[in-house]
Amino acid sequence: MAKINKNFQSLKESYLFTEMGNRIAAYVQEHPEARIIRMGIGDVTLPLPQITIDAMKKAADEQADASTFRGYGPEQGYDFLRNAIKEYYGRLGVDVALDEVFVNEGAKSDVGNVTDIFALDNVVLIPDPVYPVYVDTNIMSGREIKYVDCTRENDFAPLPPDYPADLVYLCSPNNPTGAAFTREQLEAWVNYANVNGAVLLYDAAYEAFIDDPALPRSIFEIPGAETCAIEFCSLSKTAGFTGTRCGYSVIPHALTVDGVSVNKLWLRRQTTKFNGVPYVIQRAAEAAFSTEGVTQCKQNISHYKENARVMAETLDALGIYYTGGVNSPYIWMACPDNMSSWDFFDFLLNQCGVVGTPGEGFGKNGEGYFRLSAFGTRENTIEAMDRLKKALSK
Amino acid sequence: MAKINKNFQSLKESYLFTEMGNRIAAYVQEHPEARIIRMGIGDVTLPLPQITIDAMKKAADEQADASTFRGYGPEQGYDFLRNAIKEYYGRLGVDVALDEVFVNEGAKSDVGNVTDIFALDNVVLIPDPVYPVYVDTNIMSGREIKYVDCTRENDFAPLPPDYPADLVYLCSPNNPTGAAFTREQLEAWVNYANVNGAVLLYDAAYEAFIDDPALPRSIFEIPGAETCAIEFCSLSKTAGFTGTRCGYSVIPHALTVDGVSVNKLWLRRQTTKFNGVPYVIQRAAEAAFSTEGVTQCKQNISHYKENARVMAETLDALGIYYTGGVNSPYIWMACPDNMSSWDFFDFLLNQCGVVGTPGEGFGKNGEGYFRLSAFGTRENTIEAMDRLKKALSK
Repeated sequence: MAKINKNFQSLKESYLFTEMGNRIAAYVQEHPEARIIRMGIGDVTLPLPQITIDAMKKAADEQADASTFRGYGPEQGYDFLRNAIKEYYGRLGVDVALDEVFVNEGAKSDVGNVTDIFALDNVVLIPDPVYPVYVDTNIMSGREIKYVDCTRENDFAPLPPDYPADLVYLCSPNNPTGAAFTREQLEAWVNYANVNGAVLLYDAAYEAFIDDPALPRSIFEIPGAETCAIEFCSLSKTAGFTGTRCGYSVIPHALTVDGVSVNKLWLRRQTTKFNGVPYVIQRAAEAAFSTEGVTQCKQNISHYKENARVMAETLDALGIYYTGGVNSPYIWMACPDNMSSWDFFDFLLNQCGVVGTPGEGFGKNGEGYFRLSAFGTRENTIEAMDRLKKALSK
Repeated sequence: MAKINKNFQSLKESYLFTEMGNRIAAYVQEHPEARIIRMGIGDVTLPLPQITIDAMKKAADEQADASTFRGYGPEQGYDFLRNAIKEYYGRLGVDVALDEVFVNEGAKSDVGNVTDIFALDNVVLIPDPVYPVYVDTNIMSGREIKYVDCTRENDFAPLPPDYPADLVYLCSPNNPTGAAFTREQLEAWVNYANVNGAVLLYDAAYEAFIDDPALPRSIFEIPGAETCAIEFCSLSKTAGFTGTRCGYSVIPHALTVDGVSVNKLWLRRQTTKFNGVPYVIQRAAEAAFSTEGVTQCKQNISHYKENARVMAETLDALGIYYTGGVNSPYIWMACPDNMSSWDFFDFLLNQCGVVGTPGEGFGKNGEGYFRLSAFGTRENTIEAMDRLKKALSK
């Protein structure tokens, strides 16, 4: 008699986006004329850089010709793309070897699947508020989770706790808070991990939004990280690949656990359960890392960052506390007038026709806060901020 | 102190293709003039059907334009593709609901990841010889595995054992043996699963190679399968997508375990750890399922099947026992003169310059057998068979 994995029954219903959808639908039914501006979901709106489109179409044509056709590729990714990623790291001053890079179909999969290679009795440390995937994947495998509080007191960039843990999730610039760790803060985490024998699972999906040269864009800019960290990154926000699906993980050879190479363990996991990323997508990703590709990606990122600046300026003018908005596409704002995050959701929807994400959906420390995304159009962003200003000035 | 998943240490080194590679390299060094014909790996050689290329390029252009750009898609796959898959099943007389279909980046991932939703103490039943992914993914999660013998006595199409199991892997037409289950055999397995409360994990990746109308192409052609089976399928061999990566799984709503909907469990797993297949790839897959797409795919499959016929004819003439070759791209042949499978590998390489896969690499019952793939070119297939005939007639 087959049995299910009972840990799934400990998952909370993922009601956040469902509940948001229900409230929006109700509002639309009452106000069919309203032009709703959506700043809730972290999805890009600008089209793919043309250089990636051209590369994808050229690769498609290769697949139409027997003499250039490619079947199964290497599970870890083609050398041409891993080389491009290696060079990208090189520009940050980080030296990675080709076989330390694993190409994947987006950071979410690797962030979720990486738990396969660690024991079930590892204790997991997760900041709160948090991207729910870290929590849910560990609930599914039945691991004990401890939370580090991210609060206004630590500007949502917490330092390590005074107790040990085995696996530590960090995300910088952070989703949902937009807060980016300083070099000193990351040094403290790397030290914590090396002292405790912990592994840092470092989500750098938003690194391309950092333009303060003092802030690290990769955990491997911190000495000692190579013996304690795995980095996950993605082209989703860097190159607009949310619907095109390509990311990468970096696992240094120097990272060992129980005397075993984590890089080799992950390679074995991937060759067994994964068959690589589509050839045409890897060619598009390669193009995104070229000199011209990086220029085109930066244009899109600048567009979103200008949106974030508009939003930050508005909140500054209104005297509202927030994190992010500078080196991040997210703004994490305190709800005005001590509203709860769902109350502010309703206020913003009903008074402004604007949708954002209630902080409570990201964990208990999210209560009283609210996430706005800068991935919309300029026009909508300006309009949304105008509406917010008017509503709060009433 | 982090700990690794110790189950990984119980995995056998996946030396099969490494060892094959070493022996081939040694041969090439001694015989630099030899024209080696590779029939070892199950990878396609014909280019993608033009209709899929056209769809992919059209979708790429949509991604270059803000008004048609698509970001995150539904994790379960776009409706347009799931509809196309539903209609494909309809042509087999199988009625599946849209939300019973899960689009993935190839069958290997789902076949591997599906173990996430089942308890660790389920007992797994696996035929031997076997596609190694079934074995390795369950070793990784520490499950007990029992093996069903596939032998010449049962023509490598075994019936259920007289003891119960919880999760049962079946693959038909089979990799590596090419054997396809009859309707009566599958009825016996469905009955076994329903009586024992077992779940059949049915790998139909080679179903498109069946043209005997008496043989089922989907487990869901068997009444009762909807309460006990999950089907995995792929465009890798159907449409040449080995490097393009798209597959699908079907999980009926009627399948419950411990009173829980397996479809809902898997949806939760996928929404947590997976972000869907690239939009451009889903458009290419949709095109493969269109009327014209199916015609183009069938042309390629016919080409491979004619290769298989050439191979089967040769073995018939030589009086060598084999399975497959008819409704399958694989031929599973007895090694001549009681050679071991590695001895025959060396014989074939050294006497004929032809590479195949030693059966021993697929499990203990593979010893004495050998897998040949029909995915090569016609010219190479004919040449390889001529060389084999000459070598064995000496």
